Amino acid sequence: MTDYRRMWSDLNMDLEKHDQLMNALPLVYEDVFLRQAGRPRAMDYFDSVVAEIHSERIAELQAHKNQGGKICGAFCVFVPVEIARAAGAIAVGLCGGSQFWVPDGEKVLPRNLCPLIKASVGARLSGTCPYFQSCDLLIGETTCDGKKKAWEVLNEYAPVYVMDLPQMKRPRDLAAWREETGLFLDKMEELTGQRVTAEKLAVEIRRQNRLRRALERLYRARQADPVPVSGKDALLVTQVGFYDDPDRFIERTEALAAEAEERIAAGEGVFGAGAPRILVTGTPMAIPNWKLHHIIESAGAAVVGEETCTGTRFFAHQVDEGGVTLEEQLQALAERYLKINCSCFTPNPGRIEDILRLVGETRADGVVYYNLQFCHGYAVEYHAVEKALKERGIPVMKVETDYGEEDTGQLSTRVEAFIEMLR
Amino acid sequence: MTDYRRMWSDLNMDLEKHDQLMNALPLVYEDVFLRQAGRPRAMDYFDSVVAEIHSERIAELQAHKNQGGKICGAFCVFVPVEIARAAGAIAVGLCGGSQFWVPDGEKVLPRNLCPLIKASVGARLSGTCPYFQSCDLLIGETTCDGKKKAWEVLNEYAPVYVMDLPQMKRPRDLAAWREETGLFLDKMEELTGQRVTAEKLAVEIRRQNRLRRALERLYRARQADPVPVSGKDALLVTQVGFYDDPDRFIERTEALAAEAEERIAAGEGVFGAGAPRILVTGTPMAIPNWKLHHIIESAGAAVVGEETCTGTRFFAHQVDEGGVTLEEQLQALAERYLKINCSCFTPNPGRIEDILRLVGETRADGVVYYNLQFCHGYAVEYHAVEKALKERGIPVMKVETDYGEEDTGQLSTRVEAFIEMLR
Repeated sequence: MTDYRRMWSDLNMDLEKHDQLMNALPLVYEDVFLRQAGRPRAMDYFDSVVAEIHSERIAELQAHKNQGGKICGAFCVFVPVEIARAAGAIAVGLCGGSQFWVPDGEKVLPRNLCPLIKASVGARLSGTCPYFQSCDLLIGETTCDGKKKAWEVLNEYAPVYVMDLPQMKRPRDLAAWREETGLFLDKMEELTGQRVTAEKLAVEIRRQNRLRRALERLYRARQADPVPVSGKDALLVTQVGFYDDPDRFIERTEALAAEAEERIAAGEGVFGAGAPRILVTGTPMAIPNWKLHHIIESAGAAVVGEETCTGTRFFAHQVDEGGVTLEEQLQALAERYLKINCSCFTPNPGRIEDILRLVGETRADGVVYYNLQFCHGYAVEYHAVEKALKERGIPVMKVETDYGEEDTGQLSTRVEAFIEMLR
Repeated sequence: MTDYRRMWSDLNMDLEKHDQLMNALPLVYEDVFLRQAGRPRAMDYFDSVVAEIHSERIAELQAHKNQGGKICGAFCVFVPVEIARAAGAIAVGLCGGSQFWVPDGEKVLPRNLCPLIKASVGARLSGTCPYFQSCDLLIGETTCDGKKKAWEVLNEYAPVYVMDLPQMKRPRDLAAWREETGLFLDKMEELTGQRVTAEKLAVEIRRQNRLRRALERLYRARQADPVPVSGKDALLVTQVGFYDDPDRFIERTEALAAEAEERIAAGEGVFGAGAPRILVTGTPMAIPNWKLHHIIESAGAAVVGEETCTGTRFFAHQVDEGGVTLEEQLQALAERYLKINCSCFTPNPGRIEDILRLVGETRADGVVYYNLQFCHGYAVEYHAVEKALKERGIPVMKVETDYGEEDTGQLSTRVEAFIEMLR
């Protein structure tokens, strides 16, 4: 067994503070996940990933580094990980989902900024996240004001490269994003010293497409009633998808989806048939942010889908695999990534179409609009989403919250009342 | 005399609600402006502009419309008004600076959004701003998440055209902004049905350059000790510069600057020699937002400069007048406007250079960093600005506030303590 404390120490981590974090996680995890009744057996793997989230996977990253490989960390579903991998780097997700990191983030960032950004920066500053510590380069993007400016602060502590995402989706914006994708390829080649060839990129495009299809298969299984896998578990799987070795993740997710399909055939589920069904839409939920799902499912409703960055925005749309040259592949990558309907675009009608379609596909009885506090993009876009849902008679409630526990009781009460109305 | 009530009624305004707004303004104005001792005589003009802000200037706009002319309203210093004017439109500023409009904005926007955006949208929704009511087109931009998304909401009530401002300042971003400037020209031609010729555009470029130089001259006068014009008055002049007829504004501002220069020669000022000198930096102050300046100057310090959108960012840098073709002129316009160092750019080192230079030029004793609540860009950028100022031993304090009066007492106390420290 690897000496993880030695590894963490070599990564310049704050061991004492990290112990606090690691001691808290198992208790929370048991409460949120392990006590669920009738979980699929295939969730065992994901439980073990979380149990070893700062040890086994980090050891893999270190092994890669010891062989001269590079690690890059990304915060956003717009970063084309295919390119990083084709350059020989391992790409890992970096979003901070714990209140534990917020106070350290607030040392350099305003308090009234979204908890995800504060936690991300705090995770790096506090030296308690081995993913951050392992990264040779952090890949930021310009999706929102908070992140766009936070990278400047973070850059004082770690090397950061920022991809400039367009704010509209006109043909000229796609062309600009195509160029930006090419600049990212150049940067990755510079980082790793390896040449990205069309052959390598084709392999990674196919790999990430498989990963997306595996998640889609799991999501489709959630359309059944009774639902064969809980929303919490499905969310966890997606969250793990940002960190894990992709091939292993695909295999394990396919296994889970297969088990879910067996359950559907057998009429088995984790909630009773007819349980209220909720589609969650809004801002991302980075690991270990399971707050809203835990509240909803503790109230007896099933979360049947997530129109979020830790949901459909992560895996919807395949990259066209027909590209033979790097030029064609970069164009295909740019096209696929620009299909993501983030609120950072103006206008963003595609997101409303996605939500309405998902309400139908998941047979949701209602929508919970999840907004991380101070996220202006999604907060303002609620106006249009609410209007579209109400016009169609689809119940919707807005939840604006952070990572703290102070509002949990109040939120539970509101969510319970909403679910009661759906029954 | 024009029948203004009839005019407002024809503009579909809410007359009763508008009366409430108009009844409050003179009292505030007297308290903030007219009670200042030793004001320059040339401020009489600007006082009269404010007194007639919803009447005389609006009558001018209506006269223009009655002759088939178009009015367009802009929210931001990045909108190249030269192009609108060259197409025969009148361009007016539209920022909402009053708490009066915030509750109406909050009907369709989240509460924790910057008051400027809420007030702007609220001004349109409430039908109490004759500038909004006069506009044939509102020109938005993508400078911040809040505004970018608010235009989508506003577009339900009025036609909005959005300019996509780049988020970086690389050569390719300048090229993109040059294209965007050309698209804006096309849009203006479409709106007015008039062709923008190089001749017309040259006239407007020279005109707006003169306007900028007039404001610069006034700002230079503020470098003297004692300062010949108060910060409140200088701010008011800049605010009026967004609304007024440009030729008249240039003439009156030049007259004020000349009077200020006479005062300097005579050793006269509105504050005693040696009074503490404050540079304000941060978010814009739209008319009638005079809150911070009033607090600072009521405490006995002079505001000697504004590194804000209602300050140097509005008038710094001339457009190169050497362009002969439209292509050359559009390039020159794009270059000038992209020199504005807004926090929406990443990174934005030019703003820190501007602040440090302005501290020197204005001989400021300290800097007040003004942040409209929930403006993420300027809030996060404070980290870098504070660091640069502290490294040079320049005192700085951060003020985060909205348009309400609830925090005025507390702010006054903080500002007084800061000024005391500078003496």
